[in-house]
Amino acid sequence: MIKVGIIGAGRIGRVHSESISKYVKGAEIKAISDIKVTEELQSWAASMGIPHVYDDYRKILQDPEIDAVLVCSSTNTHAPISIEAAQAGKHIFCEKPVDPNKDKIREVLDVVDKAGVKFQVGFNRRFDHNFKAIKDRVIAGDIGEPHLIRVTSRDPDAPPIEYVKVSGGMFFDMTIHDFDMIRYLSGSEVVEVYAAGGVLVNPEIGKAGDIDTAVITLKLANGAIGVIDNSRKAVYGYDQRAEVFGSKGAVQTSNDTNSTAVYSCEAGVIAEKPKYFFLERYMQSFAEEIRCFIDSIVNDTPTAVNGNDGLQPVLIALAAQKSLEEGRPVKLSEVD
Amino acid sequence: MIKVGIIGAGRIGRVHSESISKYVKGAEIKAISDIKVTEELQSWAASMGIPHVYDDYRKILQDPEIDAVLVCSSTNTHAPISIEAAQAGKHIFCEKPVDPNKDKIREVLDVVDKAGVKFQVGFNRRFDHNFKAIKDRVIAGDIGEPHLIRVTSRDPDAPPIEYVKVSGGMFFDMTIHDFDMIRYLSGSEVVEVYAAGGVLVNPEIGKAGDIDTAVITLKLANGAIGVIDNSRKAVYGYDQRAEVFGSKGAVQTSNDTNSTAVYSCEAGVIAEKPKYFFLERYMQSFAEEIRCFIDSIVNDTPTAVNGNDGLQPVLIALAAQKSLEEGRPVKLSEVD
Amino acid sequence: MIKVGIIGAGRIGRVHSESISKYVKGAEIKAISDIKVTEELQSWAASMGIPHVYDDYRKILQDPEIDAVLVCSSTNTHAPISIEAAQAGKHIFCEKPVDPNKDKIREVLDVVDKAGVKFQVGFNRRFDHNFKAIKDRVIAGDIGEPHLIRVTSRDPDAPPIEYVKVSGGMFFDMTIHDFDMIRYLSGSEVVEVYAAGGVLVNPEIGKAGDIDTAVITLKLANGAIGVIDNSRKAVYGYDQRAEVFGSKGAVQTSNDTNSTAVYSCEAGVIAEKPKYFFLERYMQSFAEEIRCFIDSIVNDTPTAVNGNDGLQPVLIALAAQKSLEEGRPVKLSEVD
Amino acid sequence: MIKVGIIGAGRIGRVHSESISKYVKGAEIKAISDIKVTEELQSWAASMGIPHVYDDYRKILQDPEIDAVLVCSSTNTHAPISIEAAQAGKHIFCEKPVDPNKDKIREVLDVVDKAGVKFQVGFNRRFDHNFKAIKDRVIAGDIGEPHLIRVTSRDPDAPPIEYVKVSGGMFFDMTIHDFDMIRYLSGSEVVEVYAAGGVLVNPEIGKAGDIDTAVITLKLANGAIGVIDNSRKAVYGYDQRAEVFGSKGAVQTSNDTNSTAVYSCEAGVIAEKPKYFFLERYMQSFAEEIRCFIDSIVNDTPTAVNGNDGLQPVLIALAAQKSLEEGRPVKLSEVD
Repeated sequence: MIKVGIIGAGRIGRVHSESISKYVKGAEIKAISDIKVTEELQSWAASMGIPHVYDDYRKILQDPEIDAVLVCSSTNTHAPISIEAAQAGKHIFCEKPVDPNKDKIREVLDVVDKAGVKFQVGFNRRFDHNFKAIKDRVIAGDIGEPHLIRVTSRDPDAPPIEYVKVSGGMFFDMTIHDFDMIRYLSGSEVVEVYAAGGVLVNPEIGKAGDIDTAVITLKLANGAIGVIDNSRKAVYGYDQRAEVFGSKGAVQTSNDTNSTAVYSCEAGVIAEKPKYFFLERYMQSFAEEIRCFIDSIVNDTPTAVNGNDGLQPVLIALAAQKSLEEGRPVKLSEVD
Repeated sequence: MIKVGIIGAGRIGRVHSESISKYVKGAEIKAISDIKVTEELQSWAASMGIPHVYDDYRKILQDPEIDAVLVCSSTNTHAPISIEAAQAGKHIFCEKPVDPNKDKIREVLDVVDKAGVKFQVGFNRRFDHNFKAIKDRVIAGDIGEPHLIRVTSRDPDAPPIEYVKVSGGMFFDMTIHDFDMIRYLSGSEVVEVYAAGGVLVNPEIGKAGDIDTAVITLKLANGAIGVIDNSRKAVYGYDQRAEVFGSKGAVQTSNDTNSTAVYSCEAGVIAEKPKYFFLERYMQSFAEEIRCFIDSIVNDTPTAVNGNDGLQPVLIALAAQKSLEEGRPVKLSEVD
Repeated sequence: MIKVGIIGAGRIGRVHSESISKYVKGAEIKAISDIKVTEELQSWAASMGIPHVYDDYRKILQDPEIDAVLVCSSTNTHAPISIEAAQAGKHIFCEKPVDPNKDKIREVLDVVDKAGVKFQVGFNRRFDHNFKAIKDRVIAGDIGEPHLIRVTSRDPDAPPIEYVKVSGGMFFDMTIHDFDMIRYLSGSEVVEVYAAGGVLVNPEIGKAGDIDTAVITLKLANGAIGVIDNSRKAVYGYDQRAEVFGSKGAVQTSNDTNSTAVYSCEAGVIAEKPKYFFLERYMQSFAEEIRCFIDSIVNDTPTAVNGNDGLQPVLIALAAQKSLEEGRPVKLSEVD
Repeated sequence: MIKVGIIGAGRIGRVHSESISKYVKGAEIKAISDIKVTEELQSWAASMGIPHVYDDYRKILQDPEIDAVLVCSSTNTHAPISIEAAQAGKHIFCEKPVDPNKDKIREVLDVVDKAGVKFQVGFNRRFDHNFKAIKDRVIAGDIGEPHLIRVTSRDPDAPPIEYVKVSGGMFFDMTIHDFDMIRYLSGSEVVEVYAAGGVLVNPEIGKAGDIDTAVITLKLANGAIGVIDNSRKAVYGYDQRAEVFGSKGAVQTSNDTNSTAVYSCEAGVIAEKPKYFFLERYMQSFAEEIRCFIDSIVNDTPTAVNGNDGLQPVLIALAAQKSLEEGRPVKLSEVD
């Protein structure tokens, strides 16, 4: 039985806690920490059967019984806490992004490497049934050589402006998942990025220095071309699709819905909208990524999303940001 | 070049005329007849390049240059005109039903047989791309032994009550096509029929002695079971679907639409309704059935829908009618 | 916190146990009983955090702390155990069928009624997201008056012959769910049944006195017509679809799949097969039915599937069986 | 009755001839010309009822009875023949591209303008039922402000290398239709283009100086972003899809198939591949564009695809070509 400590009791920390309780055999949560230990948190932890609630994550790191930690605290603490955890000999599941700064990520990876602990980054969409089905076809060779990789990723609604201001920008906050998806589906590295973007959803987003709509072209090392289209607001729901096209065929996914019901009436033939909320849409994948993390500890196998998988999307985002600012394609080597 | 005469210049006679002009190489229309030769008809015939317009179909039968006739006149004249045409040595395409009376149909088939002319019945749906695709799978053996054959056939709107009164009843007017489809798709003969029906669309239809909604179960000679569901009114359009299920798999068709466009909005994900009108839905099949009829003349091959194919659906309709009246399954041998 | 005892630790008893542990807040399992208490069962119960494992269900009934029992034992014990449980003042969730004998069911319902305990029958499909989406449209009035209700229900493979022999026949074992579904979706009672059936999948099933393929027509009190098609073996997987058609439109569901991935290649455009196994397909509904049962206890509201809902499908199955044997439609009043 | 002359009796010239004969009421073909008048051509023309076959298009231009010409000759003759035709007072339907050289196109437009004749360019896809359904939603305001316009355009197989060498390059030969589609669907002008391309299908295409795979990003005057993905070879058929996404929703089309049949078997759930050949896929649109051209003459209304619609895609192609060569986004003003 792997004993786990959760660092950060916000939304994602609790999602992972529930996953471990319900779906991950072979793991149990011994402690959770948060900078604010409220009554609500204590009562929630009790209901989850979590024995200890700390206001200092170091108590988790100091507990010799705890094998692994999930770093679910605020983004700016991911790197330092991961470093401390590695030095304490804990296996680490770190929420994305590891850090917006590539040098800090590299520092984390160095420490992790020396400590010899497992390190997995929270790109949960790799564990989604739909995207995994694409990847399975690619791996099976059914697509042949990949030529085109397309990702459509549109949020159901723009975040509050206050969030936009501290989000690090759409590429780091939202598209980062799509950058990872392009790498995952293609099995190749991005070498150059061209980003076209605009403020079409909400002018306030523009005033905050960000964009809300983008098309990003990515040249890959294997010659294939990736393309992502993003919007902060799709009124019909959370639009999450992908396609890989290659020499032997293509595979694409459509959106998940709450039911397969189709209603035919005078107004048309009406199917359900995509699932609206990312937790609803990706719940299964959050559980699966933790299950795989625990498995890699138990079986001493490499993690499914390793340190480099945490670094590369940040480099791509840096290149995309530079491309947008300078109006030209940018090589990853230019930002690294 | 096969020379054709059209007997009856109503809707279906004109549909066939246009098909021959546009799509059927190797045939040309020499004459058309109708009991009412209006100016409009003459001008229409001129625009179609049809040289002769007669008020008496006998002139067509007497023209030695004419090889084949299309009997598109009113239902009660199908049998006598077909008999005369066969005796005149003309190949015959006869609109369905050949006659509501099974003995008259047999008389027609006898005369046709003795005359050695081709005889094809107008069950156009056999030539529809969707139903043909099902049949192709059945013939290819992809379904294995057929176990279940399902036909959904719902009109977009009920006909006028005046029409209902003279239609011969829903089974003879509408379901007759579905009876043929069950035979066509299964490749087997119907031996017993059970019909459950009701008046759910319009009480006036009930007052006229007819029904507007039905589920008909058909036991087939090969052991398979057929089932048809009918409604006189589907508010979303003309609903025409079928499925064959067997030991190796199943094949089913959905409705044709005017475009593949799907609109996603706050109200849902909206596709187009089925094509609304039978001419729009089945236009291609009307052309194809005539092309096949002409081919069978040119190549001296059996017609695709022969005399027995004209007889059996009428026997099934008789059994269905009796089943409805007596509230019990009825064998075809009981009505024959 | 509602305390629950599980009677019967077979497949479905364990499914419900897992549901309560994972998904049903407000309930906990205090004890489980089985006629065979193996080491495996004890270790499984421990892993689920179930404190007590008994070899006699009476210990559960005698425990004053236990509020509710789930009767998951073999079919022939459903009725007597339910009666004892009701007399012990326990709320009862009873797996389907309550009993194959209608009089025994009525006896159970009488006792339950007098005891004033909750009673819910395990027709889990009512809680399935797809069928519920149909029902929601019906309730919302989007379909108008229902005219036709169609259920396609095909198993992925026939059960072993040994099971067939003791199953009570396909109508009681498999179609019973579909009989319930027709009632649920139509909101009306069945008054007459006509069943056409055959042995097309496996002759051994016929030798065992059962059928493996059927089409059943059901006349409903509100005038609508229901139709079910069944097969014991669909090679492509578990085929579970339904449609309600009415005066204002139609709503239909298709099968659930493991992903939305579609693969386009030289061989065709290939989507995933339906989920294969009933537990996989209906897992969510098993959890939901227990959640609703617990809710009805907590809120003292009527259960979602009541005693009459347990009785009617058995009457329909009796009528279907008689119809098959006598080759004629059978009224429910004839078997009641 | 509008009298038409066809200049060029190759594949597309004959397609238009058949369209006029079969579908375009109010027009008839008086003459066809080709630089090679073979016996086959004469016999084909006779079968189509075309009275005159010339080896010199000037005879068509000199015939005072002829109202309109269809310029279907080789690309390099489009401009000079159009100029002569305009000077002869003929209305002109000109196949795309008008000319690869933007200055020549402008010269044609000037002459046409002065002559006051109708001029329509052969971007037939605007008349396709699927793309038109998207446009109808855009025009109706159902999409709101367009934000993203996506076009997927993949050929079923690469053309012969000999053709590639003289094609003018993929952007001028194939993508030109997609450039037009972006303008048509968005209702806005392209201001900047970035093209990423590669040789992934066939290295011979690379040796011939061309590419076979591309992703092209287009910035539009209204702020929206367009993106096209192209491949010369999709093994599953002719892949022709589009999507417009905006503030109120999105509309997308999928491919047309020969039937709606879906086959479920152990291998999967298999639908038909897209229609393979462009003539098969777009036949309806070829007829519709000619019908609209004739209508604009009869009713003296502007043509649906005017001179500027002929010019802009060529400018976009020039920018795309320059972008590909220089590895940077190129403004249309740079190539104009």
